[in-house]
Amino acid sequence: MTDYGLEDAFVAVCHAVAFQIAPDLQVTDITHLIPLGDIRRGATVLAQAVPYFPPAVHVAVVDPGVGTARRGVAVAAGNALFVGPDNGLLSVAIAAAGGATRAVSLTNRTLWRDTTAATFHGRDIFMPVAARLATGMPLDEAGEPVEVTSLVTLPQPGYRVTGNGAEAEVVTVDGFGNVQLSLPGAEAPLARLIPGATVQLAWGGKTTTMPFRTTFGEVAQGKPLCYRDSGDWVAIAVAGGDAARLLGLRPGTKITLTVA
Amino acid sequence: MTDYGLEDAFVAVCHAVAFQIAPDLQVTDITHLIPLGDIRRGATVLAQAVPYFPPAVHVAVVDPGVGTARRGVAVAAGNALFVGPDNGLLSVAIAAAGGATRAVSLTNRTLWRDTTAATFHGRDIFMPVAARLATGMPLDEAGEPVEVTSLVTLPQPGYRVTGNGAEAEVVTVDGFGNVQLSLPGAEAPLARLIPGATVQLAWGGKTTTMPFRTTFGEVAQGKPLCYRDSGDWVAIAVAGGDAARLLGLRPGTKITLTVA
Amino acid sequence: MTDYGLEDAFVAVCHAVAFQIAPDLQVTDITHLIPLGDIRRGATVLAQAVPYFPPAVHVAVVDPGVGTARRGVAVAAGNALFVGPDNGLLSVAIAAAGGATRAVSLTNRTLWRDTTAATFHGRDIFMPVAARLATGMPLDEAGEPVEVTSLVTLPQPGYRVTGNGAEAEVVTVDGFGNVQLSLPGAEAPLARLIPGATVQLAWGGKTTTMPFRTTFGEVAQGKPLCYRDSGDWVAIAVAGGDAARLLGLRPGTKITLTVA
Repeated sequence: MTDYGLEDAFVAVCHAVAFQIAPDLQVTDITHLIPLGDIRRGATVLAQAVPYFPPAVHVAVVDPGVGTARRGVAVAAGNALFVGPDNGLLSVAIAAAGGATRAVSLTNRTLWRDTTAATFHGRDIFMPVAARLATGMPLDEAGEPVEVTSLVTLPQPGYRVTGNGAEAEVVTVDGFGNVQLSLPGAEAPLARLIPGATVQLAWGGKTTTMPFRTTFGEVAQGKPLCYRDSGDWVAIAVAGGDAARLLGLRPGTKITLTVA
Repeated sequence: MTDYGLEDAFVAVCHAVAFQIAPDLQVTDITHLIPLGDIRRGATVLAQAVPYFPPAVHVAVVDPGVGTARRGVAVAAGNALFVGPDNGLLSVAIAAAGGATRAVSLTNRTLWRDTTAATFHGRDIFMPVAARLATGMPLDEAGEPVEVTSLVTLPQPGYRVTGNGAEAEVVTVDGFGNVQLSLPGAEAPLARLIPGATVQLAWGGKTTTMPFRTTFGEVAQGKPLCYRDSGDWVAIAVAGGDAARLLGLRPGTKITLTVA
Repeated sequence: MTDYGLEDAFVAVCHAVAFQIAPDLQVTDITHLIPLGDIRRGATVLAQAVPYFPPAVHVAVVDPGVGTARRGVAVAAGNALFVGPDNGLLSVAIAAAGGATRAVSLTNRTLWRDTTAATFHGRDIFMPVAARLATGMPLDEAGEPVEVTSLVTLPQPGYRVTGNGAEAEVVTVDGFGNVQLSLPGAEAPLARLIPGATVQLAWGGKTTTMPFRTTFGEVAQGKPLCYRDSGDWVAIAVAGGDAARLLGLRPGTKITLTVA
């Protein structure tokens, strides 16, 4: 997963470097369309994807500080290994995988490509290290151990269940404009957010009302709904439309849900 | 093939779920940029792709009714199996493969993921079933047999060859604005549409004239041509340009071709 | 690598045709978002990617002359084989691989698909030939030998190192707006372009000044820098921004760099 885009050869070059080291490697792309430098969006998407994978080495690069003093790291969590910059990008997925059990700083230069560009650690450091980890190299060989508590983590937005609703925050917006909140689906019934309920949303001086439903097809095209999304977070969508744009919601927006 | 887009982890999650079940599965993406919910466009693109594949299981998801009463199905046709919603999306490709020979409704819940989101049957039902079919599970194990005549089919636009031309309809527009008509290339000579002919097109009160040619490079940049496209349908293009936009043509536009 | 885009089934159809011939083929996509018909951009991207691959057959199609008299060719250079139109697209990568050692015109029609569309040689000629080369078919079987000196080559923009800087040309602009010049990084120190230097850029009557740095993170967001890029060419970027758009630079722009 990167913010490299699909118009250039950057992604293919990373694949190619991996195949040089491990010709039979199986590579799956999560996405390369993370907005340039948007670490929080990258962290959220990575955490959405990782739980569905078999044991794997996940390489993630959204790295505005590439070539500066920030560390490169490899981290073990659950049945996964993570390789990338230590800027918080990996932290949400690591937490979702049960937390880091071991971590190393990528200081073993014998694993890197011979020449290392200051602007392309994905090609020159992260992929070579990840390809070797994927073929069985022990984590310790990637570099010096570091305390897992020293890894950079992103603050995770909170939520509060009230008597008749909840307070939460917009975590992310997907490519269709569906808005994921920081309220876990499992908490929704406690907040009286159940199919059939009518929900008033209030944010930034605005309010609107919509039904709580199970799926998009239960409201008319163009109509909003509140629902538990496929990652089991409470979310807001517009059937066949872009809820984020239509309602003016963006990551970080604080929102109050009140069940009528 | 889906309308999931490339900005999120949705596609990768489907791949990952398949690899959990069948680690050595070979996965090929047709496209994930079908416009959201555009079943007809999806059906056309799927039918364009399938004939070139070796025996395969094709999973297609353009599914505005996900989570409602519409069925999920698995269908055998020719040397292919199709898995997806029973909303017409599969119907054009099934017809192109020689018609459905057997079909089942995806009622065997033991094949699904343990928890099934109402908004992501691609991940929770279609891919798990398809991965098992790809590794040899018999079709009948996916669910209850249904009559192939009960499968939803999209009406296919017709055409009529006249004394000096044809009447047809715009079927689809590709990413470059090339316009595919409902007139099979094999019928073109009967309609006097042969290289060297001059063709008048008439639609919605507008007319324009262009040469019938074999390939783009036979007209100047920016100039229109009528030709038999790579799927062997009569089509309209502008060399180095977007014919659909320049001429105002869209799927469903009825058009009359007259050879001078 | 193609200019086929990602919205249609064109790329998948090429993959499928290859898998018909070579079921175990390992396929990697470089990019399919070369702007339609932009041979120079395609040639540059291909040359950026190829050096990082293990031995491979590279199929590249940016082919505005498809179906006209231009040849299809297969070319050996370094440890790679190249298959595509003989329109200059392959030439920069071939030069980067050490130059062509052997070449054939793709005249062996027994390797092509049975019916060959005038507009889709990628599917009908290039991929079938490439798949067979990838599985060990000797180059000579693809067609008649041609002199490597007869292959179409693109003129490569030059550069000149002066006493306190250099004259060069914009070669390409990547998906982020980073601007690659025709000045090799290895020449930069001779031009006094070293980290810490201040560089005045002049082009088309405009001038601007920026620092020479090692990586993006060494300037503030939104600020320009001159640097040696990951392919080791002198380049111009704006941290977190689009240098080409902000400065009005495009491929072919001649530019003078003067170190203060």
